[in-house]
Amino acid sequence: MLNPVIRQLADNAARFRTHVCVGLDPDIKKLPDGFLPTVDGVGAFLREVIKASAGLCIAYKPNISFFEALGIPGLALLADLRADCPAGVPWIIDAKRGDIGNTSAMQARFLFDQLGADAVTLHPYMGEDSVAPFFDYRDKLSFVLALTSNPGAATFEKLKMASGATVWETVVSQCVKWHEQWGNLGLVVGGTQGELRDVRAVAGRLPFLIPGVGAQGAAYSDVQSVAAVDGHVAVINMSRSVLYCDSSHHFAQSIRDELGKFRAI
Amino acid sequence: MLNPVIRQLADNAARFRTHVCVGLDPDIKKLPDGFLPTVDGVGAFLREVIKASAGLCIAYKPNISFFEALGIPGLALLADLRADCPAGVPWIIDAKRGDIGNTSAMQARFLFDQLGADAVTLHPYMGEDSVAPFFDYRDKLSFVLALTSNPGAATFEKLKMASGATVWETVVSQCVKWHEQWGNLGLVVGGTQGELRDVRAVAGRLPFLIPGVGAQGAAYSDVQSVAAVDGHVAVINMSRSVLYCDSSHHFAQSIRDELGKFRAI
Repeated sequence: MLNPVIRQLADNAARFRTHVCVGLDPDIKKLPDGFLPTVDGVGAFLREVIKASAGLCIAYKPNISFFEALGIPGLALLADLRADCPAGVPWIIDAKRGDIGNTSAMQARFLFDQLGADAVTLHPYMGEDSVAPFFDYRDKLSFVLALTSNPGAATFEKLKMASGATVWETVVSQCVKWHEQWGNLGLVVGGTQGELRDVRAVAGRLPFLIPGVGAQGAAYSDVQSVAAVDGHVAVINMSRSVLYCDSSHHFAQSIRDELGKFRAI
Repeated sequence: MLNPVIRQLADNAARFRTHVCVGLDPDIKKLPDGFLPTVDGVGAFLREVIKASAGLCIAYKPNISFFEALGIPGLALLADLRADCPAGVPWIIDAKRGDIGNTSAMQARFLFDQLGADAVTLHPYMGEDSVAPFFDYRDKLSFVLALTSNPGAATFEKLKMASGATVWETVVSQCVKWHEQWGNLGLVVGGTQGELRDVRAVAGRLPFLIPGVGAQGAAYSDVQSVAAVDGHVAVINMSRSVLYCDSSHHFAQSIRDELGKFRAI
C-alpha cells in the first residue's frame, strides 16, 4: 500500500499542476513592509504566505533552524503554524536529524507528534538504527540526505567507494532497500547537481525532495523536466525566491504570480 | 594558540583527576523519588545532578533531543540550565547538526549564542560549507561524528573507500586538515568500537568525545587506558549509568559515589 504522504504529494501535483513546495525559511530582516521585525511579525507574515500560496504548491517545508534562530518563541511559532497548513498539504519539517537509536526515537516523537510533521529530513551517516525510529512511523515520510545542493557535496558525498559507487550512490542503494522494507522513504537531491538523472537511475521510485532551485541557482524547468517525469514524485522546493520576491505590501499577489509561473497549462 | 575549550578540558582533567563528562539526558519517567514527572521536576533534578557532580566531571553534555522531547518548555529549560553550569566547565550541546552553509550559520548562532554552548556535535555528511560556519566560532569547539557507538556504524561509517581507507578514516583525515586551519575541532568516537586505537592513529591530537561507556556497554577503564593517554584530551561521556544510578532520595550521594569510582588516585 502506498504511503499516504507520498500519495498526497502525487495527488496534489496532479490537482494543482505544479511540483513546487514552498520553503518556510523566515528571515526577520527581510519581512515585507508592514510587518514588525519580531517573532509575532514573522508569524503574521508566514500565515499570509500560506494563505497566498493555497492551491499553488504541493507541500510546505519549514526549516526548523530558521525558527530556532528566533529562539524558543520561534520554535513555539513553528508548533503553532501547523494549524495554518491546509488539510491535505504535507508539512515537511526540514530538520536533518539522526542520532543513536533511542535518541532518534525522541527526535521522531518531537518532529512527528509534537510539531505535527508529515515528513522530515534525515542524515544517513550513523546508519540503520539511527534512521529506523523515523521509518517506524509508517504513515509518515522520511527524506534521507543523498546528494545535497551545496558545494560541500564534493567533500564526502561524491567520493568513490571501494565498490566503484560514490558515497551518495551507496546511500541511495541502501535507501532503496530500506524503502522495500518500510515503504516510506524519500531522498534529498540537490537541484544544483548535474547528477539528478543519475540519482534517479539508482533510486527507483523513491520520491525526491529537491532544494537548490531559485536563489541557490538551479532552474525549475530543468529540474522538473528531469525529476518530475514518468510518474515520479518530485517535491521542488523554493524558499527565498518566493517568500521575499516583493517587499511591498503587494507581496501576497507577487507570491501568487511567482508561483503561477511554475504551473503547467 | 590552543583553543580555550580544549585547554579547559585538559585543565579540568588534571585538576579533577578524571575524564568523565556527565551526559544530561533527562528522562521524565526515571526521576528519583520526590521529583514530579514534569518539566519543572526535570529541571529541579538536573540542577541537583549538576551540584552533586561538581569537581567530579570535566564537562556536561546535554543532548538537545532529550529536551526537545519535553516540548518547547523543555528547550526553555535547556536554555535556563546554562546558568547552573559552573564557570570553567564546558557545556557541550550534543545536537548533531549540519545543513547548507547559510542554514548552518543559523544553527551555530542558536547553539552557541542563544543556548550558550561551549562545544557542539556535527554530522559530516554535507561537507565543508556545512561545518565551516561552526568552525568560524574560533573560541568554541566542534566535535564531528567520526566512528559512532551504535550498531548502525556498520551501515556506512565502516565501509571501504576507493582510497583503501574506511568512510570514518576519510572523515577523520579531513577533520585533521580542518583542525590545522581552524584549530577547534574534535571527534565523536564511540567507546563501544574496538577501533578506538585506530582512530587515534589517524586523528593526531584532536580531542575525542566518547559516548558508549556505561549503559551502552563499554568499560571506562578500557576506554580511558586507550584514549586518555600521552596527553590526549578524551571526554568520556556517561549519561544513564550516572543520572539514574539511584532512584531513592539518596541519589545525590550515589551520583558522587558513582563518579568517584572513575577518579585517579
